[in-house]
Amino acid sequence: MSRHSLPRQSLDFPAWYGEVVRRAGLAESSLVRGAMVIKPYGYAIWEAIQRALDERIKATGHENVYFPLLVPSTVFDRERELVEGFAPEVAVVTHAGGKKLEEPLVIRPTSEAVIWATYARWVQSYRDLPLLYNQWANVVRWELRPRLFLRTTEFLWQEGHTAHETEDEAMAEALRILHDVYADTAEQVLAIPVLRGRKSASERFPGAVETFAIEALMRDGKALQAGTSHYLGQKFARAYNVRFTDRSGKEQYAYATSWGASTRLVGGLIMAHGDDTGLRLPPAVAPYQIVIVPISSVDGGWTRVREASEGLAATLRAAGLRVRLDDREEIRPGFKFNEWELRGVPLRLELGERELEDGQATLVRRDTGAKERTSTDGVASRARELLAEIQRRLLEEAHAFRAEHTLENPKSYEVMREFLEAAGGLAIAPWCGSPTCEDRVKREARATIRCLPLQRVSIKARCIVCESLAVERATWSQAY
Amino acid sequence: MSRHSLPRQSLDFPAWYGEVVRRAGLAESSLVRGAMVIKPYGYAIWEAIQRALDERIKATGHENVYFPLLVPSTVFDRERELVEGFAPEVAVVTHAGGKKLEEPLVIRPTSEAVIWATYARWVQSYRDLPLLYNQWANVVRWELRPRLFLRTTEFLWQEGHTAHETEDEAMAEALRILHDVYADTAEQVLAIPVLRGRKSASERFPGAVETFAIEALMRDGKALQAGTSHYLGQKFARAYNVRFTDRSGKEQYAYATSWGASTRLVGGLIMAHGDDTGLRLPPAVAPYQIVIVPISSVDGGWTRVREASEGLAATLRAAGLRVRLDDREEIRPGFKFNEWELRGVPLRLELGERELEDGQATLVRRDTGAKERTSTDGVASRARELLAEIQRRLLEEAHAFRAEHTLENPKSYEVMREFLEAAGGLAIAPWCGSPTCEDRVKREARATIRCLPLQRVSIKARCIVCESLAVERATWSQAY
Repeated sequence: MSRHSLPRQSLDFPAWYGEVVRRAGLAESSLVRGAMVIKPYGYAIWEAIQRALDERIKATGHENVYFPLLVPSTVFDRERELVEGFAPEVAVVTHAGGKKLEEPLVIRPTSEAVIWATYARWVQSYRDLPLLYNQWANVVRWELRPRLFLRTTEFLWQEGHTAHETEDEAMAEALRILHDVYADTAEQVLAIPVLRGRKSASERFPGAVETFAIEALMRDGKALQAGTSHYLGQKFARAYNVRFTDRSGKEQYAYATSWGASTRLVGGLIMAHGDDTGLRLPPAVAPYQIVIVPISSVDGGWTRVREASEGLAATLRAAGLRVRLDDREEIRPGFKFNEWELRGVPLRLELGERELEDGQATLVRRDTGAKERTSTDGVASRARELLAEIQRRLLEEAHAFRAEHTLENPKSYEVMREFLEAAGGLAIAPWCGSPTCEDRVKREARATIRCLPLQRVSIKARCIVCESLAVERATWSQAY
Repeated sequence: MSRHSLPRQSLDFPAWYGEVVRRAGLAESSLVRGAMVIKPYGYAIWEAIQRALDERIKATGHENVYFPLLVPSTVFDRERELVEGFAPEVAVVTHAGGKKLEEPLVIRPTSEAVIWATYARWVQSYRDLPLLYNQWANVVRWELRPRLFLRTTEFLWQEGHTAHETEDEAMAEALRILHDVYADTAEQVLAIPVLRGRKSASERFPGAVETFAIEALMRDGKALQAGTSHYLGQKFARAYNVRFTDRSGKEQYAYATSWGASTRLVGGLIMAHGDDTGLRLPPAVAPYQIVIVPISSVDGGWTRVREASEGLAATLRAAGLRVRLDDREEIRPGFKFNEWELRGVPLRLELGERELEDGQATLVRRDTGAKERTSTDGVASRARELLAEIQRRLLEEAHAFRAEHTLENPKSYEVMREFLEAAGGLAIAPWCGSPTCEDRVKREARATIRCLPLQRVSIKARCIVCESLAVERATWSQAY
């Protein structure tokens, strides 16, 4: 594993991405086209993301549940917009138990259908509301252009499905998830700054009245939708007949939200922080926050530095850190440095013989490459300080990168088009609200509207595309 | 929800089980026959079981991974015994992405096929071994007689799949999982005593050389297989061509194990501890370890007891306990008592007005019904003591139940047959090793061999069935 042969990020981003995923041992393609095998190191990152999301989902009052993988096709077919949105993507079970099934079963591409068909049994009165449920599950969507973590035919995610008495309450729920679960996890845990916004009609989830999303900028200048939260109005309640008696004794349809974040976040983590040397993992999600590399060049020295390294590993673990001791004797230190840099471990601790005698060790930061000597006595507290600093700095750096790659109020459509076509980043410009202008940007610059402001406030400006009166400011970008 | 209408456990165990699952809000049947919806309370129990298993799986050196749900049928077909064992149970995807697939895809009934087909790429040398991986996943097996948690067409589980250099190492792995992961979780966390044993050939996993299992006795006298660990020999390595260069430079096939435990454990928990009043949950897995019920009969008293209850809830939570405050004003205390007893909460704390003035509260144990007054000052430490005591006592009680329902060395086959036919519990008796005798017991008493001793030691006795020389002592029972 030599870092010199990793493709340069700036020269061939897709090749860089693929090689980092492969060499860092995150995932690989499987025997079924488009589905991936998530390897131990990649899965450990996903587990850390899961924990962060799950904590926040529970802290905001939700409970976990589990609904079936397979949905009778007649149940799935009851929601017209859902079916139309997913028709080209579903996988269908036609045989089971050695027989042809009387009714085919759809593998869930998302679970609104099966969940709302069940909510019909659970909701009679306003007293049964709200239902605030989430599930951790796999879903299948047949992807034509699969890409590890970013678009796979099967992926892992959480999907929340809530039912409410009023539109206001459901809308507040959709926004609470956007802010307190998704944006908070992205920024505080993944160290990825995100825009929080509304989707245009063409980018909405099938069946949603309003789709909110967090959008992150990757280091190739493209945006990644990193989590979505939908206000679904009463569409699903009508399709699945979820009615309740309200406080005034009248029958009403319940108001719905749904929201999901997936293993795609692992892809976002790679592309938001990685550099030419490989991954750079924020300490909050790094499977190993610190790797210890013992170094000995003289005969008989190895045992001493290895034993001292074991002692330091125990000290650091006792301080609550996730530690990897790389004591492979046959592998040279320089090779180990490259390997753990590629795998993005935030801190490296080198322990050599001379240092050992002085009661010292060397700490090397993955984010900046900065080295420092530290006393082995105070190593745990210093490591903790540095990890906190790295977590902060990765977020700041990503913030700065986004600021440098944001074009606000481009002078002309031509300027914006060129910027977007070259994947220069995010362009923020007035838009008239018409799909025609949106389509033109998509066609001419391969860029879509990533988000619109959460609040609809009227502006005085002219559409960057057609120059008629604008209704709001849109953020455009090429996207994954 | 009245406990008086719960069917008596001793009179109609299946009806009792079904009602407990339904009324405690654990799970319900879904729209797809045989698949279940796991409701919040049931899922919270499953999450506690998952945490216990996952900790132990990691502590024994394993890492989590994720392999795809769908397996190309030609890959699945490569292992003859696996296919024959699962053929009547698999669900098959024939269409996806709007087209008929060139090759049908099997939904994993278990993942040996897809995992060993992948291991072929991961293993070249003995240096690549062992592979010690586990995944948390859903699997589908078409069940003809589904039963919530116990047999469902889709269930959630963990499945470990390991590859080793030698037979000894693989065998030691299979036994380590049996003891340190499954038996330890069952006994220390679920408070269910288990037998650890070997399966007879007819009860083995398809493709296994040796299947080990933990077996628990339910309160209706039937056994439940609560976790299995398989030594698979080189069968899968041969079928999927997983070869490595060994330490002497020769090519070898790798040795395999696989092991799984599932949502079925929730069913085991219900049936091992439940009584006529409902569930009795061991504190280690109870979603709420203590429920607080404020009680007020005088006007204006409610606010005071509710506020004091909130204070106690905060104190107990700060002490690390999982607490539910039932402050529904419109529901009477007696109704709440019944509801939380049905749902198996280990401890109830009642707080009335007079007690409040005296600085006292009442603690009631779910396992014994014992009540005691305690000072509100010391309530957290007393609650912790009682919870530890309840955890211990549930295990002891289940141990005593099993001892009372075990028939060792029955005098004759007739005695054993009558005992087993009446689901009297476990019968331990010498067996000649012949499938003919095993079949006869199955036919005449509906009982199977649940397990054989882990160590094959020769005995001097005659087979309880045919009276020819016995080879070992078998444990028979009716089973789920």
